[in-house]
Amino acid sequence: MTVKSKIRMGMIGGGQGSFIGKVHRHAAALDSEIELVCGAFSSDAEKSISSGKALYLDEKRCYSDFTQMLKIESTLPDSERMQFVSIVTPNHLHFPAAKAALEAGFHVMSDKPATMTLEQAIELREIVKKSGKLYGLTHTYLGYPMVKHAKVLIESGELGNVRKVIVEYHQGWLATTEDENSKQASWRLDPKQAGISCCMGDIGVHAANLMEYITGLQIETLSADLGSVVKGRLLDDDGSVLMRLTNGVRASLSASQIAVGEENNLAIRVYGDKASLHWQQQEPNSLEIKRHNLSSTVARIGVGNFSERVTNATRIPAGHPEGYIEAFANLYRSFAVQIRDFEAAQQPSAEHYVPGIFEAVRGMAFIENVVASNLSDAKWHEFVTEHSPLPQ
Amino acid sequence: MTVKSKIRMGMIGGGQGSFIGKVHRHAAALDSEIELVCGAFSSDAEKSISSGKALYLDEKRCYSDFTQMLKIESTLPDSERMQFVSIVTPNHLHFPAAKAALEAGFHVMSDKPATMTLEQAIELREIVKKSGKLYGLTHTYLGYPMVKHAKVLIESGELGNVRKVIVEYHQGWLATTEDENSKQASWRLDPKQAGISCCMGDIGVHAANLMEYITGLQIETLSADLGSVVKGRLLDDDGSVLMRLTNGVRASLSASQIAVGEENNLAIRVYGDKASLHWQQQEPNSLEIKRHNLSSTVARIGVGNFSERVTNATRIPAGHPEGYIEAFANLYRSFAVQIRDFEAAQQPSAEHYVPGIFEAVRGMAFIENVVASNLSDAKWHEFVTEHSPLPQ
Amino acid sequence: MTVKSKIRMGMIGGGQGSFIGKVHRHAAALDSEIELVCGAFSSDAEKSISSGKALYLDEKRCYSDFTQMLKIESTLPDSERMQFVSIVTPNHLHFPAAKAALEAGFHVMSDKPATMTLEQAIELREIVKKSGKLYGLTHTYLGYPMVKHAKVLIESGELGNVRKVIVEYHQGWLATTEDENSKQASWRLDPKQAGISCCMGDIGVHAANLMEYITGLQIETLSADLGSVVKGRLLDDDGSVLMRLTNGVRASLSASQIAVGEENNLAIRVYGDKASLHWQQQEPNSLEIKRHNLSSTVARIGVGNFSERVTNATRIPAGHPEGYIEAFANLYRSFAVQIRDFEAAQQPSAEHYVPGIFEAVRGMAFIENVVASNLSDAKWHEFVTEHSPLPQ
Amino acid sequence: MTVKSKIRMGMIGGGQGSFIGKVHRHAAALDSEIELVCGAFSSDAEKSISSGKALYLDEKRCYSDFTQMLKIESTLPDSERMQFVSIVTPNHLHFPAAKAALEAGFHVMSDKPATMTLEQAIELREIVKKSGKLYGLTHTYLGYPMVKHAKVLIESGELGNVRKVIVEYHQGWLATTEDENSKQASWRLDPKQAGISCCMGDIGVHAANLMEYITGLQIETLSADLGSVVKGRLLDDDGSVLMRLTNGVRASLSASQIAVGEENNLAIRVYGDKASLHWQQQEPNSLEIKRHNLSSTVARIGVGNFSERVTNATRIPAGHPEGYIEAFANLYRSFAVQIRDFEAAQQPSAEHYVPGIFEAVRGMAFIENVVASNLSDAKWHEFVTEHSPLPQ
Repeated sequence: MTVKSKIRMGMIGGGQGSFIGKVHRHAAALDSEIELVCGAFSSDAEKSISSGKALYLDEKRCYSDFTQMLKIESTLPDSERMQFVSIVTPNHLHFPAAKAALEAGFHVMSDKPATMTLEQAIELREIVKKSGKLYGLTHTYLGYPMVKHAKVLIESGELGNVRKVIVEYHQGWLATTEDENSKQASWRLDPKQAGISCCMGDIGVHAANLMEYITGLQIETLSADLGSVVKGRLLDDDGSVLMRLTNGVRASLSASQIAVGEENNLAIRVYGDKASLHWQQQEPNSLEIKRHNLSSTVARIGVGNFSERVTNATRIPAGHPEGYIEAFANLYRSFAVQIRDFEAAQQPSAEHYVPGIFEAVRGMAFIENVVASNLSDAKWHEFVTEHSPLPQ
Repeated sequence: MTVKSKIRMGMIGGGQGSFIGKVHRHAAALDSEIELVCGAFSSDAEKSISSGKALYLDEKRCYSDFTQMLKIESTLPDSERMQFVSIVTPNHLHFPAAKAALEAGFHVMSDKPATMTLEQAIELREIVKKSGKLYGLTHTYLGYPMVKHAKVLIESGELGNVRKVIVEYHQGWLATTEDENSKQASWRLDPKQAGISCCMGDIGVHAANLMEYITGLQIETLSADLGSVVKGRLLDDDGSVLMRLTNGVRASLSASQIAVGEENNLAIRVYGDKASLHWQQQEPNSLEIKRHNLSSTVARIGVGNFSERVTNATRIPAGHPEGYIEAFANLYRSFAVQIRDFEAAQQPSAEHYVPGIFEAVRGMAFIENVVASNLSDAKWHEFVTEHSPLPQ
Repeated sequence: MTVKSKIRMGMIGGGQGSFIGKVHRHAAALDSEIELVCGAFSSDAEKSISSGKALYLDEKRCYSDFTQMLKIESTLPDSERMQFVSIVTPNHLHFPAAKAALEAGFHVMSDKPATMTLEQAIELREIVKKSGKLYGLTHTYLGYPMVKHAKVLIESGELGNVRKVIVEYHQGWLATTEDENSKQASWRLDPKQAGISCCMGDIGVHAANLMEYITGLQIETLSADLGSVVKGRLLDDDGSVLMRLTNGVRASLSASQIAVGEENNLAIRVYGDKASLHWQQQEPNSLEIKRHNLSSTVARIGVGNFSERVTNATRIPAGHPEGYIEAFANLYRSFAVQIRDFEAAQQPSAEHYVPGIFEAVRGMAFIENVVASNLSDAKWHEFVTEHSPLPQ
Repeated sequence: MTVKSKIRMGMIGGGQGSFIGKVHRHAAALDSEIELVCGAFSSDAEKSISSGKALYLDEKRCYSDFTQMLKIESTLPDSERMQFVSIVTPNHLHFPAAKAALEAGFHVMSDKPATMTLEQAIELREIVKKSGKLYGLTHTYLGYPMVKHAKVLIESGELGNVRKVIVEYHQGWLATTEDENSKQASWRLDPKQAGISCCMGDIGVHAANLMEYITGLQIETLSADLGSVVKGRLLDDDGSVLMRLTNGVRASLSASQIAVGEENNLAIRVYGDKASLHWQQQEPNSLEIKRHNLSSTVARIGVGNFSERVTNATRIPAGHPEGYIEAFANLYRSFAVQIRDFEAAQQPSAEHYVPGIFEAVRGMAFIENVVASNLSDAKWHEFVTEHSPLPQ
């Protein structure tokens, strides 16, 4: 193997005071396969530089905007130039940053959601295709080993035919007006920065993504009821969605940011005709499998045999809990492998899956279809993906 | 005190081979306040007698039908005559048996559902009123101390304003065609014996009842999606309902009999603007309370101070689990107290609550409104209680 | 079958204000197989009568002392006379009451501990033998279905060879001096009424009994460290015991009444060379089985197949929790079956096991050996059962 | 701020095929505060180089032994030279490597145990003192935020006076003879590489360390019962220890490597006279606090207010689980802060605690005192720390 160096990453956004940028950096650093080499951490040049220096970067590679970064980095020698950008800005910049980076010839790892609208997501799909570059979307929860194992179990027929799915994502952190004052909260509730949905756009989409990933089924029709429970809000902070998936499978999704006392309670239950599975993100290392008229079993990471893609996603022996950062790091590590494979002109293996442009389009479609259904008096709304379902 | 004897109970249904009759007898016996003195255990006279004898009853008081029982018991002296009947027949006989017993001057404790239709429930309400007798309906889950405590917490404002409710009742016992062969299963799936719904009529109605009891809110509109997941069934075996309660509170209800691996998983979560509560019937002695930005607490029966109606509903010190039969017995014991109060011409206290004709009407209304909504293409269906919402 | 009536029980102790008498009555009543017909509820004649009347007994059969009760009941006709006595007095009366009842020709169901000393227990064993009557001891926890299933699993070799056992019984109710004022507490801390040990005598002995029952192994040597954590107490309120069981198996037992925040936390873990099992009394309907390098399983009552003695010990379908009273009732119901078998001159089947005089002797031996070891500077103390190990 | 670069780390041990070296590297990398710059990964020069290259190191800084590494690194310019070594060799090399590094003027972060004997640990304490350098010992479990919070609660008096402690560390991975074949297992069972104890030396010492850290109490006397449950083993694979801590507090410790089905089950319960706390490493983000006659509470990382040292030890908001690597990283991050403080001639703050030479001595003392007690027939053995308690 002639590979000599870590994969070089540039970051767009994530300057001092940012939260999610730091999480991406933990995730990228954990496996020592990726090195942060430059960044446009803030649109304020001074802040970008001070942020970069606090990260032990060379001042010269702390840029004041991503256009400048893409331009200058492009001129650096192969062995120095960043290889991909990690986009961790507020939502409304994800699309322009990704577009610019791809068009400048860089791979992109983007924070979620990919864009502000379904239309943009469809456009981005074209841009990715044309660029020939890799595009990853950090649907972090897919990085958990037990999420992968759940998918394996369903693929292998352990559950039989899936017949009912219940997915929930409950948080309580936006339960009161006072909670809106934080930086995290304020932009999420502002249609200009967050788009047409707060709760469904921020977390409902994770739940839908998790459901489609694990079951391999897709939403075909849905019926949504969204609300702005805290008075005065312009966007939803709570909602329920009834769905029919592929094969007519019934499913329901509940998402809330006003569920007082809930932390980050993403949970899924999938019922087949032979068995069911139950997973909760807050205790991610266990997966409960309940069989008809038999004792239930609790699969635990590291205990017994798992398929390779599950084993790859764990780092330490049984009983040493792995968490959110490890799941996140699994996406980054797989992305690094994909970049190496790309540069070696090899096909990335299924063991190194990273959610990407497919999930980007489905995610934006989910948000717009849910909002469209909520505006309608009809019980059922057909899920469309190739144009916006919203009233013009 | 001049009270000298136990309250005397007659039973309609519940002969050998019956399941629910036995549970009622355990519940009635537990506190030694009620004595089974007679029964029309089966429409087969011989079976009724053999059933009664196996229960150590005098053969003379083992009747071959409830008409005969009501007639003969009415002629017995005050100190011997049964004081109330416990109705534990299949569903379609609940109404005629209750009607006959009330009209013959006996109090009635009926298994759920009260009737086959909303119309009958409304009629029964008139009969109860006219009879001046007591009518109890065994919505067993309301007998759990922690269900009562949940209600107390909400009444006392601990949760603040209720804003979201999620109630679920998941079972897996009807997951396959083979499961239909048992006696328990077969009548539930037969429209003639079960009425217009299997899953919602059998268990969904418990979930709705629990939600309305605990929160003090009522369903105002709903949107239902029911399914017969196992092919060939005439009635629903799975369904979801979105609801708006009093004050526009959003709620959802999920019920299933095909949720493979679930036992008897009734669970409720109520989110207020100050705190939320979480209760599961399978671990009934704990009630989790989660407060905004504070550590959650787990209330346990017997630990600390509770209001009298909660304390009354527990029998043994903390850490000695109480279960389903104890909850059921709480209804019977309260009913016995109500009978004593009735005979002493006293008002029954709130501490001795037994669900009754009010719950009977709401329960039948729930079933019919859910079925009506399921038949409709409109998203929202208005919940009516004074006439059937079903298409004629 | 010519059996016509319930088994008739008389009670010694358990008058108004008593706690444990009420629990015994619930347990005896639950299955409608036993009828309370008389009692010497209190040494105060008036209180005994008022207690009995509150239980709907005939005043004539409310006796002022057990001697009187045994004498008069003996004179009643076969079809009226009580068939066994339930002894629910304070500890120091268990032995004399049992002795008198057995010698008067009545079966005995005694609350635990059987006697005040090992010497008395050995004497009682002779009395039982000579009387030819049945003697049951309410080691309640053996009535739980999952405790029976645990025993079945070990007997059937599911765990392989047992290699390590950890049993604990932790309560917090005697954690402070103030806690001593209750009636329940005061006699337990008084050597005259409780004997030579509080914590080990009251609850440690339950833990030892559970361990020996489930594993089928017996304590051979032990090393005890007892303490009176709350100052001024004459008896132990906390302690740990290291043990070697049959075959040299290592085991440890921890018991405490000052474990603040614990309710009634009896729990056992048994490690074999193939699998281990984990049971907690506070969630009695689950039994966790962990196998080497395999997913663990959770057995739940009513789910799947169990041996007959386990199935017999459950009353309702899966997911309807059964609790402490049901476990207790299992002992009474089995005792009723044993009495019927006895009267029909049949051998009682293994399916209707009730702890008895064997457990009585081992329990008293446990208490005295633990206290003896605690007094010794030697690490290991040999467990003796046929004479007191205490220094004279 | 003039800090310009990451802290530079060299590694001793941890070459390809090693397990613990990788964990240390994850931990050191997570926060991007430390950079691996060199290593003597293996005593085999070629393997050391190939290991280092796989870690993207400059071949020149991949040394074939630590003596060479210390010598050459010492000659490098300040801005390049490693600042500390991380020692991740098998146990018997910990002491010589640490000694050499300290004497060569480098800070040391050592895997546990610090040495092979108590005598060496005492000697190492002198070396550390003389060197004036920092010495850290990776008692990883002290890095968990809830372990820190537990300590804070006890320090602040929330539990009142501690009266009973139960600590357990149960694993099942060495349950059978077949399990001994792995590289991990074989050296642990070999007295030459592992020292005088397997189970107590490998994991019992973690349990003791956790107990002393959280409670602030120290073992004063103990009584140990160790066993080699799997036949033919030269060292213990299971054991129990009864202890008296400071103020005579009773405590017990159980450790096992043959507890079939257990993963890495380190758990502690501390009972005070006001409240108790309960923590389990496998669900590290929760800490249960049970108060006398009050509902218990469950503290969760990120929910509510915590002291600074707890908050510092968490990285992401509530509900995003953090695990073992994060706990480990907390030690490395604190060590990096200490190094910066050291170089700036500042006192490290209590917020950046790293276990060190104090814990090294206590840990080795624990192992030797437990083994000495196990060899003795006396019940109690006095815990000594300044000389070996072992028979010579």
